[in-house]
Amino acid sequence: MAAKGLQNIVIGTTNLSLVEGEKGELVFRGYEIQDLAQHATFEQVAYLLWYGRKPSDAEAHKLRDKMAAQRSLDPTTLNILRTLPPTTEPMDALRTGVSALGAGTSGTNIDLEHALALTAQVASIIAVFQRLRHGAEIISPRSDLDHASNYVYMITGKEPTAAQQTMINAYFVLLADHGMNASTFTARVITSTGSDLYSAVTGALGALKGPLHGGAPSKVMDMLDAVGSPDNAEAWIRGALARKERLMGFGHRVYKTTDPRAEILREIARKYSDPKLFRLAQTVEEKGLQILHEAKPDQRLYTNVEFYSATVMNAVGLPRDLFTPTFAASRTAGWTAHILEQAADNRLIRPDVEYVGPMGLSWNET
Amino acid sequence: MAAKGLQNIVIGTTNLSLVEGEKGELVFRGYEIQDLAQHATFEQVAYLLWYGRKPSDAEAHKLRDKMAAQRSLDPTTLNILRTLPPTTEPMDALRTGVSALGAGTSGTNIDLEHALALTAQVASIIAVFQRLRHGAEIISPRSDLDHASNYVYMITGKEPTAAQQTMINAYFVLLADHGMNASTFTARVITSTGSDLYSAVTGALGALKGPLHGGAPSKVMDMLDAVGSPDNAEAWIRGALARKERLMGFGHRVYKTTDPRAEILREIARKYSDPKLFRLAQTVEEKGLQILHEAKPDQRLYTNVEFYSATVMNAVGLPRDLFTPTFAASRTAGWTAHILEQAADNRLIRPDVEYVGPMGLSWNET
Repeated sequence: MAAKGLQNIVIGTTNLSLVEGEKGELVFRGYEIQDLAQHATFEQVAYLLWYGRKPSDAEAHKLRDKMAAQRSLDPTTLNILRTLPPTTEPMDALRTGVSALGAGTSGTNIDLEHALALTAQVASIIAVFQRLRHGAEIISPRSDLDHASNYVYMITGKEPTAAQQTMINAYFVLLADHGMNASTFTARVITSTGSDLYSAVTGALGALKGPLHGGAPSKVMDMLDAVGSPDNAEAWIRGALARKERLMGFGHRVYKTTDPRAEILREIARKYSDPKLFRLAQTVEEKGLQILHEAKPDQRLYTNVEFYSATVMNAVGLPRDLFTPTFAASRTAGWTAHILEQAADNRLIRPDVEYVGPMGLSWNET
Repeated sequence: MAAKGLQNIVIGTTNLSLVEGEKGELVFRGYEIQDLAQHATFEQVAYLLWYGRKPSDAEAHKLRDKMAAQRSLDPTTLNILRTLPPTTEPMDALRTGVSALGAGTSGTNIDLEHALALTAQVASIIAVFQRLRHGAEIISPRSDLDHASNYVYMITGKEPTAAQQTMINAYFVLLADHGMNASTFTARVITSTGSDLYSAVTGALGALKGPLHGGAPSKVMDMLDAVGSPDNAEAWIRGALARKERLMGFGHRVYKTTDPRAEILREIARKYSDPKLFRLAQTVEEKGLQILHEAKPDQRLYTNVEFYSATVMNAVGLPRDLFTPTFAASRTAGWTAHILEQAADNRLIRPDVEYVGPMGLSWNET
């Protein structure tokens, strides 16, 4: 049986997250994503993913402090980030920085301590490289801020407002895990060979970068810029579809109804983001869905998590080429949890392939 | 259907290589591996994999010259290798170096030009870091040497003898591709998201590093050292199995008979390597197979490609922690060919997973 793309091939079991594509539901270890987005901090969700249960207040504080203590980068990784040209794409810098972090570890590193340290340091690598490439001074982490707020602070130099804290924390919670997506799967395949945590996350970063996975949220902002105003939305969308262009932020491999994360981000954007940008985004969403439905009545297309991510990250003050790295900073919690789960009950992941090339050739006769 | 490890799940078609595990056959684009190992250079095999056919003499020379012209590393990658501590494991340095190479490219890079440049440069990264970590001077590439010989030259500083050239070229030919193994699969999953060549190869390097894939050949040398002499082979093997240790270089996920590459390497080792080491290896192979067969008569265990790789690489003058990087240098030809094939007819690779965790929990009630 050929299973190109492995769609619907079940590669095993997980205790981490459930994606119900038909119902539009997402659950992390028993908790609905709506519940978590409203009530939990990113650190609490990371604890939930890593340890398998909700932390007590004392446990959550301890994790927060441990992560905060890991935010500074070692001199080697700092020097490697300084060596990269300022024109380096942030995802390429992040991939290289995480690989360099791993070069400093030795022996086995698939454990909770390295998972939390790496999650702390991925955020720092993004922030440090962002400062370096703009010739700005590196900002030291602040241990009094939570993980997501400190991330924004190390990038912008400004302590985020309460609204911005709410937005960035919710974003980090929402994106922390999502079943067996391509980057998580990459991390598990790498782990399955007996390799290490940093190799697995470095590979996952390479997969996330692709526009069919996590590489496209900045293109939603580009699209909103191109549309310009709500009045222009319908004409612009019809023009784009006539030119066979894809609308950015629409459609998902798994969700056949609204992505629950998109709904939550829409409400967060409605409450906290720039009202003008929100109205533009909402109009593009409404007109886009209407026109897509007219054009492809059989396809169930909805806005995905990237659509309102763009509006929210813009409101937090993140430049658009940090949207995908910020996705990675959140997802590192899920990747590392999957790596731990894979390593705990491992089997080498090695599929088969059908050879359809020539046969029976001879080198000295051809 | 749960398919843990994806064993026997066919993920699609390929024109690149056929692995017949039951028959012990390996074919690259129509040519038996025995034919290629005997008659082809690594550059010719790389051409075969990349372009889909045997090159003419003029085409083979042109490819050789183009690859030779790409052997020098850019200043950024050199500086990154200089920044890594000398204690960095060579595979970690290689992973970081390839990621850094990718940081210097922009836009699309999944094409033949980047495939051949990367294959040339992977060898250079290994050689340069080998010199740097030992405080030795970096050796400039020599364009008059073929790829595999130049690799040895840049590491050892000595032009390999004719016997060493034969050995290292055959090794590079034999390892250049091998169906849908875990590192190649990693490269294809990363490519399937629309990501780039360097991300895919960086991920593949992380997968190859694992001891269940390419990370174990040095352990064959460790085992031969521990055995010490042919007389001690039987007692040592029985002791190791009694202690529940795995014999290194025995068994393969796909081959249920002799690995054809192991047979070829055995003959090469017999002809060209240190006779004392060869006799030791051969005795360990014979006794190992005999004792394993007594212990597990149902299992069809044979020596795999790693077994005689160790003897051959030792004869070429490569230290044992460069065995896996050398495997990577050869396999980069196959990885990049698979990346090109995946990108040419792409579908996002995203399997499913069965959620078996809890349900129905509420954050504020737990």
